[in-house]
Amino acid sequence: MTVRQLSLPELTEACVLLGVPGVGLWREPVREYGVEAAAKLVRDAGLAVTTLCRGGFFTTAEDLDDNREAVDEAAALGTDTLVLVSGGLPPGGRDLSAARERIAAALAVLAPYAAERGVRLAVEPLHPMYAADRCAVSTLDQALELAAPFPASWVGVVVDTYHVWWDDRAPAAVARAGAEGRIHSFQLADWTTPLPAGVMTGRGQLGEGVIDLRGWYERVAAAGYTGPVEVELFNDALWARDGVEVLEETVRGYVRHVLRPNG
Amino acid sequence: MTVRQLSLPELTEACVLLGVPGVGLWREPVREYGVEAAAKLVRDAGLAVTTLCRGGFFTTAEDLDDNREAVDEAAALGTDTLVLVSGGLPPGGRDLSAARERIAAALAVLAPYAAERGVRLAVEPLHPMYAADRCAVSTLDQALELAAPFPASWVGVVVDTYHVWWDDRAPAAVARAGAEGRIHSFQLADWTTPLPAGVMTGRGQLGEGVIDLRGWYERVAAAGYTGPVEVELFNDALWARDGVEVLEETVRGYVRHVLRPNG
Repeated sequence: MTVRQLSLPELTEACVLLGVPGVGLWREPVREYGVEAAAKLVRDAGLAVTTLCRGGFFTTAEDLDDNREAVDEAAALGTDTLVLVSGGLPPGGRDLSAARERIAAALAVLAPYAAERGVRLAVEPLHPMYAADRCAVSTLDQALELAAPFPASWVGVVVDTYHVWWDDRAPAAVARAGAEGRIHSFQLADWTTPLPAGVMTGRGQLGEGVIDLRGWYERVAAAGYTGPVEVELFNDALWARDGVEVLEETVRGYVRHVLRPNG
Repeated sequence: MTVRQLSLPELTEACVLLGVPGVGLWREPVREYGVEAAAKLVRDAGLAVTTLCRGGFFTTAEDLDDNREAVDEAAALGTDTLVLVSGGLPPGGRDLSAARERIAAALAVLAPYAAERGVRLAVEPLHPMYAADRCAVSTLDQALELAAPFPASWVGVVVDTYHVWWDDRAPAAVARAGAEGRIHSFQLADWTTPLPAGVMTGRGQLGEGVIDLRGWYERVAAAGYTGPVEVELFNDALWARDGVEVLEETVRGYVRHVLRPNG
């Protein structure tokens, strides 16, 4: 999604060129390209599919058919992780607790289906500014509570710096998630202001905002996480530029601000 | 601020006309009108000054002189409560904990100064979307932690529905704040989406958003709060309309959605 201006073939080629070993894919471009064809393309390029984004929106979904399809697509792509954005309040709703209960009920149905297909669900807490319209799960604590009834290999959480950086309880939650083996995805984006209208497309390039990205990287590593690190930037300005150039800049930002901030 | 298009004389006249018994004032229009003149105007109209907004921005303030002036102005206006928006990260800063420590240090200086003048400080947690640039205090739990070293009559918190509605820990924090006598202000605004650019001026008119305003009113009352209820809407669309009409609409919204939602 960071470089959504690239087609899947352009993306895989750029990843190989720049030494990026894996890629998180989104359902829409994958379906457009064809799930099997996308799987073959990425596999032939030697890239891992780190996650598939995304299932969820349980609070407004009529049924779980679309989410089962997302699981099937994840399995076909060869990734073990489906990211879930759980959904906000239903139309006319004002009860976040009820929304979270509905999410818990959906997980109880979807998790065994996914587990049978070798896919783990990763509940992503979204920043509280999305609580109403995108995700009633606003903190890692809440995500871990939703995951708790299931084996860690079935349901875990996403730690995305953009969504949790402000939360003074998140460091302890990361440690707990790690100890439980429930960090199923780790994503980076920086926080820049002012936020754009709709607050969807203002995620900052690594190093351009206020988040201590290296600190979060160390925190997640200290919790025992050894999986891939994804960079997920929704950013109008980045999307308007040449995609390969943006990917290159992102790799440089990752090295400079996350991997080797002290040179 | 809800009707900032009204001058202070227009505002006081409209409040009297509509039976609004008190008004929260902001420093800028008060200083422009003259602090003593504003105090006399409101007093002569028989209105209470519920709070003065706002002091704070401790994380970027050179010294506390401006905050001491804010305390003096509150005392001159005859209100017992100065609302504090504590400030976000300093320029180049990435450490929210350090910012909160700086806020704690500023409170230790300002609180006794205010107490001597009969003014309570009210620490307002702002929605986490403001953590970087306006307020490193994002939850009621954090605000209560900052208030804890001081007597409740010196330092308390603001409960503003717009800022805390998403937080599943806020109800317990409200109960604790009430038990400690630390709810120094209760403010209402509704949450509507999409948020506007800059996320400052999109607070919804009562009843037009997703917050269970009546529920929060009951929660604060159950915690023992008997003080004034303020409505604080930053909203470009409301500011563009006739101020008296907006105030009338706000009173109707308050009666309908907060005071008597069941008729």
